Amino acid sequence: MRTIEEIQKRIAVALTEFDLRRKPVELYQPISYTLSLGGKRLRPALCLMACDMFAGDLEKALNPAIGIEIFHNFTLLHDDIMDKAPIRRGEKTVYKKWNSNVAILSGDTMMALAYEYIMKAPENVRSKVFSIFNKTAIEVCEGQQYDMNFETQNNITIKDYIEMIRLKTAVLLAASLKIGVVLSGADDEYGEALYRFGENLGIAFQLKDDLLDVFSEVEKFGKTTGGDITTNKKTYLYLKAFEKAEGETLEKLKYLFENNDSDKVNEVKKIYEKLNIREETENEMNRYFDRAMDFMEIIPVNENRKSELIKFAKNLSRRES
Amino acid sequence: MRTIEEIQKRIAVALTEFDLRRKPVELYQPISYTLSLGGKRLRPALCLMACDMFAGDLEKALNPAIGIEIFHNFTLLHDDIMDKAPIRRGEKTVYKKWNSNVAILSGDTMMALAYEYIMKAPENVRSKVFSIFNKTAIEVCEGQQYDMNFETQNNITIKDYIEMIRLKTAVLLAASLKIGVVLSGADDEYGEALYRFGENLGIAFQLKDDLLDVFSEVEKFGKTTGGDITTNKKTYLYLKAFEKAEGETLEKLKYLFENNDSDKVNEVKKIYEKLNIREETENEMNRYFDRAMDFMEIIPVNENRKSELIKFAKNLSRRES
Repeated sequence: MRTIEEIQKRIAVALTEFDLRRKPVELYQPISYTLSLGGKRLRPALCLMACDMFAGDLEKALNPAIGIEIFHNFTLLHDDIMDKAPIRRGEKTVYKKWNSNVAILSGDTMMALAYEYIMKAPENVRSKVFSIFNKTAIEVCEGQQYDMNFETQNNITIKDYIEMIRLKTAVLLAASLKIGVVLSGADDEYGEALYRFGENLGIAFQLKDDLLDVFSEVEKFGKTTGGDITTNKKTYLYLKAFEKAEGETLEKLKYLFENNDSDKVNEVKKIYEKLNIREETENEMNRYFDRAMDFMEIIPVNENRKSELIKFAKNLSRRES
Repeated sequence: MRTIEEIQKRIAVALTEFDLRRKPVELYQPISYTLSLGGKRLRPALCLMACDMFAGDLEKALNPAIGIEIFHNFTLLHDDIMDKAPIRRGEKTVYKKWNSNVAILSGDTMMALAYEYIMKAPENVRSKVFSIFNKTAIEVCEGQQYDMNFETQNNITIKDYIEMIRLKTAVLLAASLKIGVVLSGADDEYGEALYRFGENLGIAFQLKDDLLDVFSEVEKFGKTTGGDITTNKKTYLYLKAFEKAEGETLEKLKYLFENNDSDKVNEVKKIYEKLNIREETENEMNRYFDRAMDFMEIIPVNENRKSELIKFAKNLSRRES
């Protein structure tokens, strides 16, 4: 068994070896830039940890894991154009540093590079790895479309929201694990169980993100607190608050999100606190986390083979940034 | 042997069967729209004709051929954003009819759908088909980047230009043929020969496009004549004219492209005529066409198995729109 740290180190080395000194430089520089910005490398780490859980050969799993990371970074590149996001991981986004055209085309190239690495899976599992990956790639696009739709829709339910974050965020984490299992050579049913583990963990992860956006301490978190409130993003907290608020509180909430008063963030936070939205969201997050753990439990491998993945999951739900 | 018409009919039917009634509709409607706009379906036709040339099973080649067509349409969707093109095949482009975000994300989804269809190739040739396709997908992105670079570069040579159109246009035609050969089960060397046939034909095809943009009769061609001149596009004609022009003619040419006088198109055309640019371009086009035919000749199959592909190539170089 490798520790998370060992696995992350291996991924970092592999990404450094990724040679992008190709031409035209205008196309490949933004790709190098994006991949060098770092981030948690969650997805390749999950892939390798899942493979390791079933004593698979991590070196054979490395290229598809890198493919997943390239794909994830490609989605960020295009999402940042669509969301007009100027900063990513503390640095300018590609579309801001260069322009939208560069971000579109470098992103497209990254998508093709992602497939190249996915298809470096050993031949006996290649088609299976591809199918899981490709189905997921389409779902991630669907999730992003729902996310954009929600910006202008006013009747979003919590169920709609959970389905959106499942597609936009959770399925890629889930697929990373499932691909890791396939690469290890273990039975499909374990891949399915880890998929469901990852899906639930992914939803918990996004709910944690929603919480941190409102309640994290600014200096610990990469972005300014309250960004979701400022932009009227229909997060779990927003939807839950509208579900629970009544009378004057509901009117106040509506007013705040329809206007952009200078104290909007603090006023909304006050209402969230009054309505216990923080606790409600934490409870919901914990429910998804526990469900994830239930799927982990049914996998019949020795507990010490599960320990790193469980530690990883716990860190995700306890993180403060 | 099937005729071109039979093959194109088969492709049209397959594309009608392509079910895009998926959700969210905001994502899939632009994809349906794009694929329903028609076009010549050159790439899947080339793929199936190449397969047919070696008596391969066309039904097994159909899905990868459709994958190539989806990929091609994906590139158009994203190119139209980058080039700010309002009209494609006589209809509004996706980014104009909807918006850039829709065009980016629907395009990304099309790219994933393209891979899905490519990977429906029979298992024994699947990895080979994928490799040809994926290498080509990356080259097409590189070609588009060179094309964008050229807009602001002033030292473009004809050699640079040919390499750009080779990547942006020719390699996908070439790969379509090569994939068709692989799907037929014929030897790699024939795939290679047809690749070179397609590469040279593709360059001839683009030179013909450059010619038609200036010298086609408006009513026959889908777009307004002279668009490339209006936008100062560094086409073969432009580069050849600057190569040949001297003295006053060179000064006039510079003046015309640095300004936007109302009679710019006609004045440039006059200079092109004076410098014999039309003939020069036709000659260059014919050289690539002849080279393509040389590669066709070395393939040791009966002449009647080649006839449809040769007819197709001749039609391309003789077309008036």
